Amino acid sequence: MLVGMLTTLLLLQAAAQVAPIPAKAPSEIVAAAPASDWVDIAPDDLLVMQLAPDRDGNARKVVIQLMPPPFSQPWIANIRTLAKAHWWDGTAVTRVQDNYVAQWGDPTEKKPLPAGMRPTRQADYVVNSSNPQMEHWADRFVQQIERAAQDRTKLPFLPIRDSYAEQATVVNGFPVAGNKNELWPVHCYGMVGVGRNLSPDAGSGAELYTVIGHAPRHLDRNIALVGRVVEGIENLSSLPRGTGPLGVYEKPEQRVPIVSIRLASELPTEEQPHFQYLSTESASFAAYADARANRKDAFFILPAGGADICNIPVPVRRKP
Amino acid sequence: MLVGMLTTLLLLQAAAQVAPIPAKAPSEIVAAAPASDWVDIAPDDLLVMQLAPDRDGNARKVVIQLMPPPFSQPWIANIRTLAKAHWWDGTAVTRVQDNYVAQWGDPTEKKPLPAGMRPTRQADYVVNSSNPQMEHWADRFVQQIERAAQDRTKLPFLPIRDSYAEQATVVNGFPVAGNKNELWPVHCYGMVGVGRNLSPDAGSGAELYTVIGHAPRHLDRNIALVGRVVEGIENLSSLPRGTGPLGVYEKPEQRVPIVSIRLASELPTEEQPHFQYLSTESASFAAYADARANRKDAFFILPAGGADICNIPVPVRRKP
Repeated sequence: MLVGMLTTLLLLQAAAQVAPIPAKAPSEIVAAAPASDWVDIAPDDLLVMQLAPDRDGNARKVVIQLMPPPFSQPWIANIRTLAKAHWWDGTAVTRVQDNYVAQWGDPTEKKPLPAGMRPTRQADYVVNSSNPQMEHWADRFVQQIERAAQDRTKLPFLPIRDSYAEQATVVNGFPVAGNKNELWPVHCYGMVGVGRNLSPDAGSGAELYTVIGHAPRHLDRNIALVGRVVEGIENLSSLPRGTGPLGVYEKPEQRVPIVSIRLASELPTEEQPHFQYLSTESASFAAYADARANRKDAFFILPAGGADICNIPVPVRRKP
Repeated sequence: MLVGMLTTLLLLQAAAQVAPIPAKAPSEIVAAAPASDWVDIAPDDLLVMQLAPDRDGNARKVVIQLMPPPFSQPWIANIRTLAKAHWWDGTAVTRVQDNYVAQWGDPTEKKPLPAGMRPTRQADYVVNSSNPQMEHWADRFVQQIERAAQDRTKLPFLPIRDSYAEQATVVNGFPVAGNKNELWPVHCYGMVGVGRNLSPDAGSGAELYTVIGHAPRHLDRNIALVGRVVEGIENLSSLPRGTGPLGVYEKPEQRVPIVSIRLASELPTEEQPHFQYLSTESASFAAYADARANRKDAFFILPAGGADICNIPVPVRRKP
């Protein structure tokens, strides 16, 4: 029996030398995640942006998931107010800067805002102990840091070494960075933020942008982040770049008209899109993050042994 | 006198409280760099790719700087051979995957390669002590690490904390990561790499791609990098995304034809473009890198206190 096992082991080793079985790719781990690891995104947390059709008549839709508490709640309340007022209908994508952002809003900058808009302030770029919901997330974050300090090798690949903060991780479906005392969401590809004028203006939420290049993490804690594009980002990222300063479209006719922006919850039931994200607290996500940081699937020779937070995008799918 | 100085200081302080003078933006530091801090890029290190005009008849040109020794030299030799043989004329951009890469080459994958192509091997993805030119760059890198360890506060912001390697920095005009024993170029936005089949294939250099999204650093040391786009990347990054697996264009007519790819040195003198990069060994670059990591210009409230290597792109300009 022992010899048999040994022989089997030797055979397995020999086989491994000939043709090692590649580890699962991150996409395979996601595809194999059980239904219970997927979290429904509430229709009130989804924005559906309809752009004018392209020149070939193809429809262009972009779907955005708004960030859950405790992050950026004053701006997110304003965004729901703006959507319910149909405020963005007839506005436009006004700026597309290569390797940076695509931005949309009112080109005249004079359209009156709807009633009920909340004041916003810089202090809310960051969540700290003054926020009643901080305790839960800070505890999770501190636990992650402490476990990692104890024995990195036994743990899933989170939190991670970051070039901008003490640590970075993913909580409640969104990438964040910070330390034991404060947390803030981070500017990864596809994240949606709030345009503003010079400080102390913190932006209302009427002027929005999404990241279409390498993560501009220098904007973290300098601008409010409110969500991320979960479908159709190619309708923004592949737009022609503006030729004015900061990628602004120089001619009005170059702007891309916005037909409408609606909360999914305000759409007729049959038009409501249904999305899910892979729970960032699930075992599937931990395995996925680890595989992103240590690619061992067939194409790869040498796993990186690490990843930056923006190279571990949270998987999102249409609800099956 | 002392009182006068003190009064002046107090006045300056008071003025500072009222209206702090913003620090220079990275772009202002680059604009102020003396001519001596700019390095001419040799015409033999520039590839000029002419795509077919867009549907409005606008010309589309992309200029690529090939990487200097000691990195990826077998592939770069092949690329010069391919360009001199006009091998890419009539090939096409075949794949554009959002937040990843745009790739070009022979769609048939059957076009014979020109004579004189060199063999390539995985071992050359990384430069180590087996490379005669390693010593110089390793020395510089080790010196940077040691100086930073001694007193980070007194030094320009390099090398930097990296999520993928012990350290990252910029040498000889290109971003690299590594440790005391080996260095490798890294996959930042706009970097150009060599498509390959499954290992041990290391690619010839005939199939190329450029990064059009967040830095896919997991590809470092798994693929050869050969240069970066220095002008016209928007002609690749704003192309429609392919709808096939991995962003491949599903219909031949969706491909973007490549009219020609030439070394600048092979073009008629009057057509040769002239570019310069900001010497990564200059004081201007150190100040620029520091400003990228610690934005204090007017828009910013809180400097990040760090940056990842791909968020410090090496400035390149047309030679004035």
